[in-house]
Amino acid sequence: MNDSEQAPLISGEGEVGFVEYQDFVSREPFCFESGGSIPELTVRYETYGRLNAAKDNAVLICHALSGNHHCAGVHSMEERKQGWWNFMVGPGKPIDTSRYFVVCSNALGGCSGSSGPDSINPETGVRYKLDFPKLTVRDMVSAQSLLLDSLGIDRLHAVIGGSMGGMQTLQWAIDFPDRVGRYIALACCARHNAQAIAFNGTGRQAIVQDPVWDNGNYDPEQPPGHGLSVARMMAHITYLSDAGMEAKFGRKRRSSSAGKEHFDVEFEVESYLRYQGQSFVTRFDANAYLYLTKALDRFDLHGPDSLDATLSAVTAPGLVVGFTSDWLYPSQGNREVAEALLRVGKDATYAELAMDFGHDSFLLRSPELYDLIRCFLVR
Amino acid sequence: MNDSEQAPLISGEGEVGFVEYQDFVSREPFCFESGGSIPELTVRYETYGRLNAAKDNAVLICHALSGNHHCAGVHSMEERKQGWWNFMVGPGKPIDTSRYFVVCSNALGGCSGSSGPDSINPETGVRYKLDFPKLTVRDMVSAQSLLLDSLGIDRLHAVIGGSMGGMQTLQWAIDFPDRVGRYIALACCARHNAQAIAFNGTGRQAIVQDPVWDNGNYDPEQPPGHGLSVARMMAHITYLSDAGMEAKFGRKRRSSSAGKEHFDVEFEVESYLRYQGQSFVTRFDANAYLYLTKALDRFDLHGPDSLDATLSAVTAPGLVVGFTSDWLYPSQGNREVAEALLRVGKDATYAELAMDFGHDSFLLRSPELYDLIRCFLVR
Repeated sequence: MNDSEQAPLISGEGEVGFVEYQDFVSREPFCFESGGSIPELTVRYETYGRLNAAKDNAVLICHALSGNHHCAGVHSMEERKQGWWNFMVGPGKPIDTSRYFVVCSNALGGCSGSSGPDSINPETGVRYKLDFPKLTVRDMVSAQSLLLDSLGIDRLHAVIGGSMGGMQTLQWAIDFPDRVGRYIALACCARHNAQAIAFNGTGRQAIVQDPVWDNGNYDPEQPPGHGLSVARMMAHITYLSDAGMEAKFGRKRRSSSAGKEHFDVEFEVESYLRYQGQSFVTRFDANAYLYLTKALDRFDLHGPDSLDATLSAVTAPGLVVGFTSDWLYPSQGNREVAEALLRVGKDATYAELAMDFGHDSFLLRSPELYDLIRCFLVR
Repeated sequence: MNDSEQAPLISGEGEVGFVEYQDFVSREPFCFESGGSIPELTVRYETYGRLNAAKDNAVLICHALSGNHHCAGVHSMEERKQGWWNFMVGPGKPIDTSRYFVVCSNALGGCSGSSGPDSINPETGVRYKLDFPKLTVRDMVSAQSLLLDSLGIDRLHAVIGGSMGGMQTLQWAIDFPDRVGRYIALACCARHNAQAIAFNGTGRQAIVQDPVWDNGNYDPEQPPGHGLSVARMMAHITYLSDAGMEAKFGRKRRSSSAGKEHFDVEFEVESYLRYQGQSFVTRFDANAYLYLTKALDRFDLHGPDSLDATLSAVTAPGLVVGFTSDWLYPSQGNREVAEALLRVGKDATYAELAMDFGHDSFLLRSPELYDLIRCFLVR
């Protein structure tokens, strides 16, 4: 695609600017699918744009495993880290905040403000740790539905998300057909295959075998950084692609291979991954990582009857997008969801984008992806 | 392929039976490519079949990273574990011990009898640990050449190996053109791509961040099992394939998902990988794992000039075999080696086998692979 073709996507784009997160707190017990409960629920979220008088222009964004509620704008002059989908969300952007009231909520069970294993149990005054109830993707969606209730939003214009966010998106369409106007699920699947479980299981072993983990009872100031960083390094490889890594890093070296043997960084790609691992430890809770990956491994739209039966509950039109280079949630698994939707008579579209950056392709600036999302939101 | 077609492969096959390893010990200093040296060298090996009077029927088998010298037969009634390539090596088998004198030597730098970081330095009486010199694939081949000298073998009928063994095989053809009659390199590459380095680098981080590793100075009775087992679990995933894992494990469960959250085994594939990780710790030295993976990451037939220039040294005819489902050393990388060989006028054949079991396909019983190897050895 040449510059002149790309230009219309850029023109008129603006930034959402400074944003602040908010906390929705429900003092009612929140019940989990597993039967467990917590005495109160917090959902942290950000919004961009304005809710219209009819309250029918809300778009809910569901984030991925390591994402959070901060998907657009910046928090302050001091804390200028742009939201993780800032390219996508803003005035004139594909998720156009001059048209839509955009809500991005932090996932239940995570560690960035919503209730999770690291939260204080108000009944005991101490962190839940492994007393936090068993978590499912359905629980995440259920918590988000309470947030929307509190905002007076009965029906969403759209739900959208990639990866774990794509699973939440599908769950929204299944569990709340009357509240979803349309949905877009990116880089997701109906359930994990054995390889995805294998990677998650190995990451969990890295954490729970770290003696510092201490059955979940570590001091938050002294987390099991060894295990968590290794889990993240490994997972990060699965978010990229062979070709993408080769183009970005190849065999570039950070240090010469001369001298005595050592196991410090030698190749550029090692340096990159170590940074990813180390920075993750400063922003992510190990127990939350365990809970969230378990929720993903257990997510299974084929159960209890069949994929077709599960998807029969859907009423909204949907767009499912797979990426050719995604080997964590291969495009085939995305297509499978769309095909099942069509088989049971739903209004569904499948798009497969040829992007070289693996699973994380949905996070990248791509005119094709932007056009797809922009068009589907206004159809 | 139907049974009647497969039958000829099986008929006449026999077992090599009981075997014993032997140690070749050189009291001369052994010099490494890096400039380092060790005061003496041990190479552990097994042989099967008989060396003929002309001493021209020897086939050298090079093993992969976690393999060893025990590739066929069993050691005793008590220790009845068959060698790792027992399907392939024996009377009437593709590497036919009624025709060939087969030698399988333990790789230098490993931990199964040949000199490595866990060996005792005879000058100091203590283990080398990280004082072991920096290791390359060329060093492994150089040590093997001394073993062959000691056996009176000037020229090999063939060299064969897969994965790390394939790299050694190529290095043999390059470094000792006069000593190699033909060679077969399976599931290998001219050099690691960024993704392969990334997985190895993450595995090394799992080990070196394990406090028990202690900069390599751990007690061999108390190894850094946490780090090593996680490294192995992750690596093991890369040896398999998406489709192969799905066929073998799918989402089969070992335990129900009911009750309180826990991080014990839930899925069958988790159980399998944990066993792989734990058993590896009992048979593999963590420092050896670090040294060997470094040697693999640094292996680069494109340097110092070009792949074509490096391969110009080859004189023997070669067969390179890639496997379609191998995503660690993709078939494309195998084909690249064969294409370069042809480009510089060498006698080379490339075969690509459609097998579903990923990188480890070369270890599996496959009529197509057997026929290829059998035919190429007698051509």
